[in-house]
Amino acid sequence: MSKVFVNIGLSLDGYMAPEGMAIENWDRPDYKDWGAKWGAMMSWVLKLQYFRENLKFGPGGETGQVNDMFRYTMERSGASIMGKRMFEQGEISWPEEAPFHTPLYVLTHEKREPWVRPGGTTFYFVNDGPESALEQARESAGDRDIRISGGANVIQQYLNLGVIDELEIAQAPVMFGRGQRLFDNLREPVPQFRIDKVVDSPTATHLRYVRE
Amino acid sequence: MSKVFVNIGLSLDGYMAPEGMAIENWDRPDYKDWGAKWGAMMSWVLKLQYFRENLKFGPGGETGQVNDMFRYTMERSGASIMGKRMFEQGEISWPEEAPFHTPLYVLTHEKREPWVRPGGTTFYFVNDGPESALEQARESAGDRDIRISGGANVIQQYLNLGVIDELEIAQAPVMFGRGQRLFDNLREPVPQFRIDKVVDSPTATHLRYVRE
Repeated sequence: MSKVFVNIGLSLDGYMAPEGMAIENWDRPDYKDWGAKWGAMMSWVLKLQYFRENLKFGPGGETGQVNDMFRYTMERSGASIMGKRMFEQGEISWPEEAPFHTPLYVLTHEKREPWVRPGGTTFYFVNDGPESALEQARESAGDRDIRISGGANVIQQYLNLGVIDELEIAQAPVMFGRGQRLFDNLREPVPQFRIDKVVDSPTATHLRYVRE
Repeated sequence: MSKVFVNIGLSLDGYMAPEGMAIENWDRPDYKDWGAKWGAMMSWVLKLQYFRENLKFGPGGETGQVNDMFRYTMERSGASIMGKRMFEQGEISWPEEAPFHTPLYVLTHEKREPWVRPGGTTFYFVNDGPESALEQARESAGDRDIRISGGANVIQQYLNLGVIDELEIAQAPVMFGRGQRLFDNLREPVPQFRIDKVVDSPTATHLRYVRE
């Protein structure tokens, strides 16, 4: 059966996004320095060969173990689920050929027809909650896995549902001070994980946890 | 010159202590399950040979790289600084020969004469703030290093002073849901670190960060 997994960048102090990183500040990344902070946290991915290729940034980029892990993450994903804010930020940032090539389910109250992008990415807008989105994602993922993309509050909803099988965190040595915490609003019984794998690099520690 | 360092256990969700772990619940570790939660987070240290020896728990215990790291942490410490709550919890928990064998500086509003324990541990009660405590610790540490022991709010004070040279975190694959967060109340400019070393083990990921 498909695994449900999270694969995200995280600051050392536990934030997925710095304070100020919001759609209304998209054109001013110097607001509370959110652009530089987010860039520092994600520097490990921005330079990967497969990331560059997938976003059509051109040739070149780092190869090796982390690049292979990143490629595997993209290739194993048969469907993804994301929140409304993450979608809205992507909607104005992704290239026309959005870099997913799978169905994506967006949790939102907005009613909207599916948004079909060239290259096999289709966004479906789900109005009846995270369990329904997961069910739809399972159906379309087939043998592949389901990625809970974010943001933090969407991941928290799925942690609270107890359905996250694998938690993959690229922990960057960067402190934000304030922002969107990954681990917040969790309810008892809090899900428990074991360490499955740790890959060290200078720009991030890649921590893989599997549900107990 | 002496380095100022932190060496702590941390839950995967960023807590140094679970909700309910407080002096008034010391005799009821089942309150909000704090005893089991804390024990799970610290399981990596409780079984180490050097920890057992130092606390006179008897012979045996795990040897190897993590045990050597733990011994080095204890041996490099020429003085430590801790908060009042951490001290009060230790005061009723440590054996008569407290396991430090150095001067310790306790940040508190309480006026109290130094408390001398057998085996070279003396607690000094500092009423004039974290900078004064650090100055006194520097004087007594000599060539050795200064450990900021905790709790979370004391570490936060020293992070905000920008004086922490090394941040050593044993990140356990345990989720608390609620408790005392390590990274909270930080002020701009937030201190920045680089990854110095990562040691993987099944019970904790030992992350060592050094100030940029």
